[in-house]
Formats: sequence, structure tokens, C-alpha cells
Amino acid sequence: MRRPFVFINAAMSADGKISTKEKKQVRISGNIDFDRMDALRAGSDAVMVGIGTVLADDPSLTVKSEKRRNGRKEACLEENPIRVVVDSTARIPLDADIFKKGEGRRIIIVSRSAPAEKVKLLGETAMIIVAGEDEVDLVAAMGELLEMGVKRLMVEGGATLNWGMLSGGLVDEIYTFVGNLIIGGNMSPTLVDGAGFTENEIMRLELISSETMEKGVLLKWKVLQPV
Amino acid sequence: MRRPFVFINAAMSADGKISTKEKKQVRISGNIDFDRMDALRAGSDAVMVGIGTVLADDPSLTVKSEKRRNGRKEACLEENPIRVVVDSTARIPLDADIFKKGEGRRIIIVSRSAPAEKVKLLGETAMIIVAGEDEVDLVAAMGELLEMGVKRLMVEGGATLNWGMLSGGLVDEIYTFVGNLIIGGNMSPTLVDGAGFTENEIMRLELISSETMEKGVLLKWKVLQPV
Repeated sequence: MRRPFVFINAAMSADGKISTKEKKQVRISGNIDFDRMDALRAGSDAVMVGIGTVLADDPSLTVKSEKRRNGRKEACLEENPIRVVVDSTARIPLDADIFKKGEGRRIIIVSRSAPAEKVKLLGETAMIIVAGEDEVDLVAAMGELLEMGVKRLMVEGGATLNWGMLSGGLVDEIYTFVGNLIIGGNMSPTLVDGAGFTENEIMRLELISSETMEKGVLLKWKVLQPV
Repeated sequence: MRRPFVFINAAMSADGKISTKEKKQVRISGNIDFDRMDALRAGSDAVMVGIGTVLADDPSLTVKSEKRRNGRKEACLEENPIRVVVDSTARIPLDADIFKKGEGRRIIIVSRSAPAEKVKLLGETAMIIVAGEDEVDLVAAMGELLEMGVKRLMVEGGATLNWGMLSGGLVDEIYTFVGNLIIGGNMSPTLVDGAGFTENEIMRLELISSETMEKGVLLKWKVLQPV
């Protein structure tokens, strides 16, 4: 399958949660981890999130370091990596921070069930990829992203998109900062939600590295593709 | 509050799950971690689980190493630590492995809403602690366990009991082995389920240590009690 190199980066609590039950974003990591995340963004061709994350957190997904933005310009790149939103039914608000903040291209990936009128409006400020009938076909979408020059894609969640990408066999590596807190809750979003694997489907990883950072631990995993 | 020293020990996937959505136990860790867990049991006065774990996995909770059992006997202790089940409505089967396997005392902690007949039957093979009206009052139960000589208590889950203990401020340390797999699922049990903390209630930890072990990482956390 031709697709970009894909990695997930996320901060989670010691019990695997990425936000509270009210989907309130919590500061899980500190400045060193934020800076690490910024470097990962600056080193990627595109940064992708799910619509749930846009609606809950309204992130700009821009590169925060001026030095890194200048570094990209010197390398003849746009200041920010392409910002990509997976949004089956085109629910993203037209005034989302992804549109308002920072230079660079935006791509909204919708399904064929997205309202044509809204897609047309989005098309005025973003590129549109249409893939899948009722839900975005992530496999097809990854192929399109590669065609558009995205060789290295950073996925910044949330739980549902992480599941879609992992269960689709579309992820190469996972980086998780495990922070020094417990969030708890059987309804709180975790690193990977969705339907979940059954016993026989469980996905194996290989530990690349483990290092303590600030008050937590940064774990890097390689996804072992089924043979 | 007078209570035992309490620690939670658990193995979880890289995304914080302790079993699949069907509550099927998955082998998350290897022999070294099993042996570490066995040593923790042998060094505890009591080992406690919730009724959900008994019904799903039917664990015996015995010390597996003969050397460790002999070590306990030489120290004038029972071969196995006291096995404790938190079981508000006395649902534990009379033929559970906890009753059938290994020597040593058993304690079933029930609430006042547990059927008297079943509690009487359980009382023939186990000691009974009654605490709380409809649900076990864990704070009161911890006090009773201390009275009975339990100074060091190991909690082996599951997700709901971990929540009850943590949210009650009854846990001193948490040890998690993070294994090299992804389970996923918004219904799969996580290290800590229950109601979950809101933004302002979130529980802070302090990292005691992090070490790679077999194909995963063992994290030890100290629970910081609110001041």
C-alpha cells in the first residue's frame, strides 16, 4: 500500500487517558514535551487530526518556534506543515483556528456524504479530498496525501482517528508521553478508542525507546505490521 | 485515616487497557513480570481484587513460587497472603478458585445490601467484612483490614476497584507494566475506570522509577495526596 510514513504523537495520563470525561483538554506534559512536539511538527510534511479534536480543542496546529518556521522557509517549505482534518461530514467551523492562524495549506478530508454546499465553502480556503461513502476511507485518503507530496505525516489524535489509522494498518510509529496524573473514567477518551481489537486481532508493538522526561516518561513504539 | 499501605499493581497495553472489550484477559507481560508480581504478593499481608475481576478471570491469587511460600512459612506466616474480594452484593461463586486453591484466609467485603443467605454461606469458608449500605464503603473496609493485621495491601484491579480506591484517597503507590500491544476500544477496561475525575479533581503522581523490562516498561508512581 503506497502511503506516507505515519506516526502518532500524543500525551496521555498514567491510566491512558488523553482528556477528561467532559473531553476537556488537560495539561499532561510540560514545556520540554511541547517543544519536542513542535519539532516533530516542523519536521513533518503534514499534521493531521480528527474532527472531534477540532471541535473539542480548536487547535491551530502551527509550528510555534519562529526559528523552526524560518528553518522551513530557508528549505523552501511553507512555514507550517500542511494541516489536515479528517471530517467525514464536513462539520468543521469556517472560523476554526486551523483556518485563521498561520500560513500554509489546509486539507479537509471528507466522505461523499458531506453536504455539497459546506464542502464548496471549505474549498475556498482549503484543499478537499473526497474519500469513502459515509465515512472517510483512510486508506484511500493516505494514497491521495502521498500523491500530493506528503511523505511524512504526523497524527495528533484524537482517540477515534488513532483507532481508524491503527486498525487500518496505516501507522508506523507511536510516541506517547505518559504524564504524572490519573484521570480515570470509563467514558474518558483514551489513546486509542473506536471499536477495539478482539483477542485475536491485538496489535503488537516493539519498544524503540523509553526515557524519563520532565515528570513523566516518553515511550516510542514501532507498530509491527501483521505478516 | 488509619489504613494499610496500599499499592496497585497492573499490566496494561500501550493505550492503557487491561483487557479487551469482551473483558478477555490478554497476556500483556511475560515471565519476568509474572515473577515480579508473585514477589509482590508474597511480600504483602493481603491481596485484593474486585468482584468483576473474579467473575471475568477467576484468579486464585496464590503465591506461585514454592520458595516464596516456604519463605512465608519460615516467617510464621500463612503460605499465601489473605485474599480479599470487594463484592458489594455477594455475587462471588462458592466454587471460585480463590476458595478452591491454596491455603490461607479469605475475606469477602460486602455491603449491607448483600443477601443474608449468601453471606452466611460465604461465612463458612471466608471471613466477612460488612461496610457500607448499597456499595462497599472502602474507607471503612480499609480500617477493618488494618484492625485484622493487614499493614501492606496489594490491589490487583480491576478498573472499577482501582477507581474506588484511588478516588477514595486510599492508594499510596501504583505500579504499571506497559506492554508492547494496542488493544483499543472505547468500551475496553482501562487501568482506572469508574466515574473519572473532572478537570479540577485530577490526581497527581510522582514518578518513582521507570525501567524497561522484557518487551515493555515498568512504571512506578507515588500518589500525591491532596494537601
